[in-house]
Order: sequence, then C-alpha cells, then structure tokens
Amino acid sequence: MKHTKPIRIIAYGKYLPAKVSSEELERAHNLPPGCAVRISGVQNRHQATFESNGFMGARAIEEALAQAKLSLGDMDLLIAAGATFDYPLPSQASVIKSELKDGLAVHVPVMDINTTCLSFVSAFEVAAKMLDGAQYKRILIVSAEIASKGLNSASPETLTLFGDAAVAFIVAYDEGNSGSSFWKAYFKTYSEGLYHTIIRGGGNVHYFRDNPYDEALFSFEMNGIKVLQLAKRTLPDFMAMVLDDLSLQLSDIKIIIPHQASKAGLAVSRRLFPFAPDQLKENIEDHGNCIAASIPLLLHQSIEKGEIQRGDLCMLFGTSAGFSIGALIFTY
Amino acid sequence: MKHTKPIRIIAYGKYLPAKVSSEELERAHNLPPGCAVRISGVQNRHQATFESNGFMGARAIEEALAQAKLSLGDMDLLIAAGATFDYPLPSQASVIKSELKDGLAVHVPVMDINTTCLSFVSAFEVAAKMLDGAQYKRILIVSAEIASKGLNSASPETLTLFGDAAVAFIVAYDEGNSGSSFWKAYFKTYSEGLYHTIIRGGGNVHYFRDNPYDEALFSFEMNGIKVLQLAKRTLPDFMAMVLDDLSLQLSDIKIIIPHQASKAGLAVSRRLFPFAPDQLKENIEDHGNCIAASIPLLLHQSIEKGEIQRGDLCMLFGTSAGFSIGALIFTY
Repeated sequence: MKHTKPIRIIAYGKYLPAKVSSEELERAHNLPPGCAVRISGVQNRHQATFESNGFMGARAIEEALAQAKLSLGDMDLLIAAGATFDYPLPSQASVIKSELKDGLAVHVPVMDINTTCLSFVSAFEVAAKMLDGAQYKRILIVSAEIASKGLNSASPETLTLFGDAAVAFIVAYDEGNSGSSFWKAYFKTYSEGLYHTIIRGGGNVHYFRDNPYDEALFSFEMNGIKVLQLAKRTLPDFMAMVLDDLSLQLSDIKIIIPHQASKAGLAVSRRLFPFAPDQLKENIEDHGNCIAASIPLLLHQSIEKGEIQRGDLCMLFGTSAGFSIGALIFTY
Repeated sequence: MKHTKPIRIIAYGKYLPAKVSSEELERAHNLPPGCAVRISGVQNRHQATFESNGFMGARAIEEALAQAKLSLGDMDLLIAAGATFDYPLPSQASVIKSELKDGLAVHVPVMDINTTCLSFVSAFEVAAKMLDGAQYKRILIVSAEIASKGLNSASPETLTLFGDAAVAFIVAYDEGNSGSSFWKAYFKTYSEGLYHTIIRGGGNVHYFRDNPYDEALFSFEMNGIKVLQLAKRTLPDFMAMVLDDLSLQLSDIKIIIPHQASKAGLAVSRRLFPFAPDQLKENIEDHGNCIAASIPLLLHQSIEKGEIQRGDLCMLFGTSAGFSIGALIFTY
C-alpha cells in the first residue's frame, strides 16, 4: 500500500552561533582536559551568546527565502518546530515572525508544534497533510533551539552534549509532480519514559514564585541509561511498524537522517538495524545534540554535500523526550 | 467554492477546578468590593489548587473517552492545544498522556500545538487535515490551561479576568458520511501586536538564572487598549477573507463560538458584525478567559444545552497573543 503525496522541499537555510570546542568548554567549566569528548563524543558545538531563538530562527528563514527567491508573503503558514523558547508566551513562531525583515508588514499565520527533539519531523508531517496547492501552497518550518542555557554546570553529561542551531525548510505542494513526495510519518509515545528527560522547574508544577532559582531544578535532567534501555526495547518493533504497509525494506531507503540524541544512542541504532555504510548520517561530533534542530541541520548538510539527490528515498528518524519515537519517509 | 471533508466531533469532556467568585477574589487580594466585575465583567472563574495541567487534561480526556465508549487505544493521536504547561520540557501532551489511566500501557503518539488562545482552533484544523480514515481515524484534542498562576497580583485587570479549565474533544473521520464536516480554517498573524500580550520572564530572553523572580517580569502582561485597537482595525477585513471563497454570509452561520478574550473584546465583535441575537455565544461571566480552553469550553456548553444540533453550521473564532486572528467553520 503506497499513498504518496506530491510534496517537495524547495529551499532551506540555517543559522549557527559561535563554535565552542570541547577544550574551550572544559576550560570554561573547570572540567578535566579530554573529558568532554570522552563523555559525549562531541568535539564542537555552537552556543548562542547575544542571540535569541527568535533572532536565529529569523536568520535561518531569511536564508531559505533567499535560496527559494521567494518572499515571506509567498508563504501560507510558518511553523516553529522546537522545544525551547524566548518567552513562555506568546508562541515562538510569533516571536520568530516578528524578527523577520518583512515580519510586521506581512500577515502570514504562525503555529508552534512541539514534540521536543522530533518537532521538525512532526511539523513536516503536519505540513505535508495541510499542503493542498490551494489555501496552502508553501509552508515554512523552522527549528530554532537554544539548548545551552538550560544546562546544569554540575552535569558534564549534558553540558558537553548539547548545541544550539536554527534551521528552516520550505516545503511546497508539488504542482509539477516532479517526483518529490511525502510517503508516511509514524510516531509512538511510551509514557514510562516521561521522567527520563525533563526540565522540572519553570512550569506550573514547580512555579517560579514558589521555587527560587536552583540550577538542578531549572536545568535539563537526563537519565541516559534509562533512555537507552527504553530505546533498545522499543525501536525494533517500532521500525517494523513504520515499514509495515509500505512494501519497503530498510535497505530500500537511501539516506537515513537520525536525531543526534547521543553517541551512545546512535551506536544503539547501528547495532539494532543492518544499516549499509553511509546510509545513516551523523554530525554529532561537530554540532552536539541540537534538540529539534538536529534532524533538519543534518538533512540540510546531507543535501548540500550532494549525499541526497532529487528522487532519493529518505527517512527522518529519532527519539524524543516524552518518550517518543518517530519516523518520516519522503522522496527528495 | 466548497470543499468540505467528512469530519465529526464524536465526544467531549471537561474538568473544572474550584470556583472562585469575584467577592472571594477581592477579599483574597485586598481589592475594593465590586471592582472585579466592574473591571473584567467576570463574576466567577475556576482556579486550580492541587491540580496540574496534566491532571486536569487527563480527567477531561477520560470523560470524553467514556462518553464515546472508546478507550485510549482507539485514538490515533493526542494533541495538547494550549499555552500553559507543567514543565518547560517535555511536551504538555506527553505529560497529560502519562496521567491517563491507560497512559503507560498504550502508546498513542502525542503532539503539542500552541497558538496561545487559538490553540484549540489550530489543533482542530490540523486534526481535520490529518484524519484520513486509515492511519488517523480518531484524534483527541485537549486544552488544559492554568492561567491563574501567571497573574500579577498588582494588576487587577488580568487578575480578575482569567480562569482555569481543561476541555477535551474527540474528532473522527466520518466514515458514515453522516453530514458532519470541516469546511475551512483561516488565520492571520499581525506581528505589530507581539508585545501587547506577553510573559517576559522564564524563557531564553529573560532566563531564570539571570533574572531572580520578580512578579511583574514573570507574570502575564497585557496592554488591553492596544489589543482592542488592533482587533478593531484588523477584524473586518479578516472576516471578509474567511467567508470570501465559501459563498457564505455571516448570517448563514447558526452559532459562533468566540474566544472569551474580555468583555470589551466581545463588545467590539458585536459592534463590528451584524450578529443575530443568540448567534454569538458567551460564558465569560462564569469562567473568565481560560486561554485556549475558552473556545472548547463554550463549544462543549453550547452542545450540552442543545443550542448546537447535528447539521448546524458553526464557527469558532477569536484573537490570540502574537497577535493573531483565527476562525474555523464546520458542520456539527
């Protein structure tokens, strides 16, 4: 059973803040030399200094619009797909839009979609379902993440792992039927993993007023071992269900863009599935885990490098806090 | 031009925390007797005490599932549509799911959609576009909002206006073509209004670590007059564009469910548009502005009272922080 829809990625852009090497990070946090790469496998990551999520997202979008030779007014919807935000209210998408060159003059509607690290994948699915060549011809998806602020300086495991990035994609209804298409997206949420990755402080449960700032409470907390165990247990069945009704084998997919959750997480995927050499892409050594921006950043790089060509069957794939697994199959 | 899709609301549920009268609120905050109703027009609102967003959302969903005589496993997606949250990470939908009776056993995927006060309307549109009678047969939408925590005790205008509520709806692909349908949703974002309604503290721009708790910075801030001016200026053209391609007049719509932004906002709508008596519903006096839960709560009440019958043409409609306007037309 194959029901594809003519959906085409027509442009992309990115914004990366300043690069921070593991040596710089170790010096800044009084960590033993060499420990950052040993713990996380990450050599470089980018970290916002003056930038906000809104600023980074707007620059990524402007690059994508320039590549497409289109303007904001040609977009029918702007989706901000991510987990971190400039203000608790309003939506991050409205903040990003307001920082665009034409943001005040053009009234394109906005929406936030958040499935933490899988937000871009979810937004891609929603966009593919909404695009109809009439009311929705082109949809902008932007993942602008600043992970670096929410890290606990007493937790080398998270401190060395995460990076900041913003990436934008324009997806369009493919009037010309040029061969690009959306095949299927598939997600599952395994709630036993809810508390394995969490920021406890700052919402209604541990509200600011009642909880003075405490780095551990207000920072990202991760039980890496439990996440890996849950992933190992759930991934094989999940992947079988993704491919189930598509008459596809994993080997039919040319390029797989996984979320860059962690070096150990990527190793688990390689052990579980018989990937061909170069089938599963990776950029964690140079960018760390950029939350929702990881998948679109790696997709962007794989297209730029020519590893993904028009007509290639691709899969976006990963796990996210919550705990969820998701995958999306499309022909580029 | 009319392209409807067979989409049907099949059940709903709600959870309301304890009622707080204006007299109680005035005593609790040392406000002059009678001022709460005078300022906001709100006589009663509900406020969470022990409840979290997750708890309230889960109870609303369980009521909806019981009404539908369905279980969580019959749902193909759970969307949390709202602006307030229990934890900054993971998504509110994953928190709500984990608090459901069957939440750990069933692996239905989850997603957050946030367009502040219009989140339910956005989620309804997304659900309508995703429902296909195959992979997505039934989608749960829940708006669980706790507004009361983020209010500044020095701002009677906001303190008296907001209430807490959770409301869940199950929307389904209408296999039987019973006459229920989704017609169209339409949104516009006017970014000049971005800073008219905002919570400044708690995100990356005014991060907790750098900003000790300060009630004004971490509470909801509203320039009510500027919001009203912007709404007055943009609403007439917006409504014309909603109806533009539908061969409909406003008078063809039996029931309009507006967001309960404020008494003054509802009065502006009544002055701008020639509504028939009883066409535009209202519950702000008894519930206040419940952010994204306002529209589904009023929809729930209008169905329960028999004001909305199967086959009736309805419109959801409102403004939201950002600043956005949105509308959705459907046949119940």
